[in-house]
Amino acid sequence: MKDIVIHECGLRDGLQAEARTVPTETKLGWIGALESSGVDIIQVGSFVHPEKVPQMADTDALFRTLTERGAGKAVFSGLVLNEKGLERGLACGVGMFCLGVSASETHSRKNTGMGTEEAQRRIIATAKRAVELGKRVQVSVQSAFGCGFEGRIPEERVLSIVKAYLEAGLTNISLADTAGHAYPEQVRRLFGALFELSSDIQCTCHFHDTYGLGMANVYAALEAGVTTFETAFGGLGGCPFTKVAAGNVPTEDVVHSLKRRGQCQGIDLGALIGLARDVSGHFGRELPGRVYKTGPLSY
Amino acid sequence: MKDIVIHECGLRDGLQAEARTVPTETKLGWIGALESSGVDIIQVGSFVHPEKVPQMADTDALFRTLTERGAGKAVFSGLVLNEKGLERGLACGVGMFCLGVSASETHSRKNTGMGTEEAQRRIIATAKRAVELGKRVQVSVQSAFGCGFEGRIPEERVLSIVKAYLEAGLTNISLADTAGHAYPEQVRRLFGALFELSSDIQCTCHFHDTYGLGMANVYAALEAGVTTFETAFGGLGGCPFTKVAAGNVPTEDVVHSLKRRGQCQGIDLGALIGLARDVSGHFGRELPGRVYKTGPLSY
Repeated sequence: MKDIVIHECGLRDGLQAEARTVPTETKLGWIGALESSGVDIIQVGSFVHPEKVPQMADTDALFRTLTERGAGKAVFSGLVLNEKGLERGLACGVGMFCLGVSASETHSRKNTGMGTEEAQRRIIATAKRAVELGKRVQVSVQSAFGCGFEGRIPEERVLSIVKAYLEAGLTNISLADTAGHAYPEQVRRLFGALFELSSDIQCTCHFHDTYGLGMANVYAALEAGVTTFETAFGGLGGCPFTKVAAGNVPTEDVVHSLKRRGQCQGIDLGALIGLARDVSGHFGRELPGRVYKTGPLSY
Repeated sequence: MKDIVIHECGLRDGLQAEARTVPTETKLGWIGALESSGVDIIQVGSFVHPEKVPQMADTDALFRTLTERGAGKAVFSGLVLNEKGLERGLACGVGMFCLGVSASETHSRKNTGMGTEEAQRRIIATAKRAVELGKRVQVSVQSAFGCGFEGRIPEERVLSIVKAYLEAGLTNISLADTAGHAYPEQVRRLFGALFELSSDIQCTCHFHDTYGLGMANVYAALEAGVTTFETAFGGLGGCPFTKVAAGNVPTEDVVHSLKRRGQCQGIDLGALIGLARDVSGHFGRELPGRVYKTGPLSY
């Protein structure tokens, strides 16, 4: 069994669709809970313009506080959308820079104001600069499995972006199912194609549960050899710039399932369940996650 | 791709945990919707004592009405717990008799008042009598993947019940994940073992989504070669005599996913979505199913 890396995206992908802005102090408490759970990477926020996603306005402040507090075991990642975002991230101590290009022309324009080609050129240049500065970088293909606006996304379009990443020396690559259209056969096929492109590639997956296949896709990705999973506490989430998105796969449900395979043994599931309950309480509603409601299996 | 059989259990496994009894006329409307959707088998109810599960008190009356109305394409199944239930079912025109034994001693006693061994002896005798009378019969192993009371269920115990079924000439066999403990590796392993026992065996699976793995288990069963799926509209359900059960896998989510594989082409997904919306409206709450809320993918 390979080691699994959990990249917790609740504070970014989970919160950006919420109407109510979460106070910085509350976010810091949630980050503390995530750190004590032992998850590997914690996505703290996005360097988007505060007017576009007010929920992310305190991203720089959060990173500054975490940097001042000093390093624990977890890596703190931040989503960067452009050159300006990289500068902001460099100034406040981001541990891992996440950048992405949407394989959907329509989604790319709605999300960034640029088409896929222009976005790809700029994102690759920005990512290369971060690498040159010695930073840890992950690049992603958003809407890799389908798009709420465009429907089917040709797999060649996804592979073309991945090839451009690899040619630029960017080998840490995530395929994101932004709209939740992925299905298991497709997940196995597409990640299989990625692993054939390069033996250096490190693959990450990111699934939303729009049509009920989030966890089935996690298993398909596992079978394909993917070892890094982007998840969100309680299954919170959904991109505000796509159509009919549902929550991310819930961190605690993924960890609960992986523990039964003998993986994620270093993660404290109880801490994740407690956090999902706190987040549910904060928003005053039930979240999609199962295990924080049922409790874990005891055997 | 093998043909898939959908066995709709919403009227039985879906309703038996509900506090509010559904009027017989409403049930008949839902049965009509299921018939027009083209699902293969519709489980109408359970021949349990009405005091034990009041929701099922009109099972005989429902079958009589359906029998008088004459046959459509769908098969109407009924769950039978004992000899008395078989007599009731024979008297009102059941099309397929479903009988089961729990692999969990504790669950068996809570559900039927008998231990697994006694239940197995009586259920097999009752099932054989139905077969001798020329009736279509399905036998199941409940709690086949784990039990809310006992935890792990040894696979040998499940296989021992299955072997007893096969020795009695009962080859239509369902493994039911009553408590929702199943995980994909286990599903593949256990159904793989069943297919090795006999080339005559027809396997059915039945999953609950307690820990978020319902759909992942459906895919694992598909990969193992299972072709009959027990599901419930909207993902309703949960056994009242087990611990922490959640709903069944939602019929419309399963059909939506299978259609993307080129299966279930004869089923009208729109009719299933309309029904799940009606059932949600009837109970005045959101059900676990995804696709009835999001609508289907249009490509």
